[in-house]
Amino acid sequence: MATVVCQQLAPRIGDLRFNRELSTRAIAEAVAAGADLVVLPELVTSGFAFESKREAEAVAIELDDPLLDDWTAAAAGRAVVVGGFCERGEGGELYNTAALIAEAGGRHVHRKLQLWHEEKRIFTPGSEPPRVVEARVGRIGVLICYEAEFPELTRTLALDGAELLAVPTNWPLVDRPPGERPPEVLIAQATARVNRVAIACCDRSGEERGQEWTAGTCIVDADGWVVAERDGSGMARADLDLAASRDKRVAGTADAFADRRPELYGRLTRPNPRTGA
Amino acid sequence: MATVVCQQLAPRIGDLRFNRELSTRAIAEAVAAGADLVVLPELVTSGFAFESKREAEAVAIELDDPLLDDWTAAAAGRAVVVGGFCERGEGGELYNTAALIAEAGGRHVHRKLQLWHEEKRIFTPGSEPPRVVEARVGRIGVLICYEAEFPELTRTLALDGAELLAVPTNWPLVDRPPGERPPEVLIAQATARVNRVAIACCDRSGEERGQEWTAGTCIVDADGWVVAERDGSGMARADLDLAASRDKRVAGTADAFADRRPELYGRLTRPNPRTGA
Repeated sequence: MATVVCQQLAPRIGDLRFNRELSTRAIAEAVAAGADLVVLPELVTSGFAFESKREAEAVAIELDDPLLDDWTAAAAGRAVVVGGFCERGEGGELYNTAALIAEAGGRHVHRKLQLWHEEKRIFTPGSEPPRVVEARVGRIGVLICYEAEFPELTRTLALDGAELLAVPTNWPLVDRPPGERPPEVLIAQATARVNRVAIACCDRSGEERGQEWTAGTCIVDADGWVVAERDGSGMARADLDLAASRDKRVAGTADAFADRRPELYGRLTRPNPRTGA
Repeated sequence: MATVVCQQLAPRIGDLRFNRELSTRAIAEAVAAGADLVVLPELVTSGFAFESKREAEAVAIELDDPLLDDWTAAAAGRAVVVGGFCERGEGGELYNTAALIAEAGGRHVHRKLQLWHEEKRIFTPGSEPPRVVEARVGRIGVLICYEAEFPELTRTLALDGAELLAVPTNWPLVDRPPGERPPEVLIAQATARVNRVAIACCDRSGEERGQEWTAGTCIVDADGWVVAERDGSGMARADLDLAASRDKRVAGTADAFADRRPELYGRLTRPNPRTGA
């Protein structure tokens, strides 16, 4: 069994020092709680609601930044850490990136491919499809927030063998009918079930420059059921059998992967249709 | 606004005459209730739990069968009808097929591409990808039951302009935690929201040779919310603005289609990985 912990935090916009301490302490607490995998929010080092590109540049860090050394040290060689940061690329461009730091310290990055709304003013979209990382705890795929609403990306990671999708998010609060879960959680549940993978979404809390967040952190098992939500302190914790994600059988001879008809899916790789009502 | 009606029925296995009357009457009732679109269950003419291929052959019909003339007459030129039947193909092979009968009487078929479990012993899978039909009420895509759990197929229809997916189903009852909706409904909700299309799933009720059905009929709007479930008589009815499905904007400049990166989705068209825990 793998112990998965999401740490829902409230970073401060533009305050790298505060966010460094906040996120590093959250990793240490998760490890103390037995975590094999710790997931932090999107852009946890920087905040989200930048007023300008210049403001984002001031808190951008590179992949060899000491902040990520702190994360590595806090994980103490025991846990995988997945968390979002504002990355300065080789040419000075900015990416909305998630780092995966494996138990042995190896660093992998996923640069958000599909930017949401205002992010397009700040960030350069990534160019590499998401890749599965073989960690000691299991095979982990990383997506960032809005990307998890694109079935092409979640399916790609599942087909490549991901047992769990770790999804740092900043979910802006949206309307929903009374008694309903946030729509992003419903999407995570359905995604888990149709792909038979576990999903850990780590959202943020609080409010930032008038933007309220959903605070919808959830851990979903490969059957699609929510097995943990954040407690009063913002921690969600679940023990998951990640090996269960390798079995794609739905019932009897029905199999979510073997029953696919990839020769009929060519439409998905053709250019986008024009939209707009 | 389009009035969408699902008629959740309990057909009798192998009893073509009973099922013909049951389904035809259900169409007439739906039209009397103002339906512009009527959805019936999967294999409503035949039942589902066949003991042998021979038993299915005995109730298989062709696309020009008088039973479908009855459906056309009951629709009275006012409604589109989508319903499932056991089809005998040109070479005698059997298909799990859904017919779409347009308002003017034109017939279209979708032959189930991805067969579930025991269906594989009975039916030949279809070979044509699903296509959107331009009806007077709107642009309709048809999928059958288990197919709606394959994001490749739902996305394909949405990209091709479907405003509503009509999904005849026979959902076998599966375990779910207390208070949760059936997993197939969660999948329909998420599918609707990520594609911004409405979905009408027509399930069946009752029990058949020991198989209990979910009776989970639901109509979901393009935001992913359940707007109608079946009433005591088995009818679910909702008025939907299908034109809303043409607008793929999520928020601001975020657009569920324009933000796709089809050049990165090639994995989806490659052969299936081997699975099995």
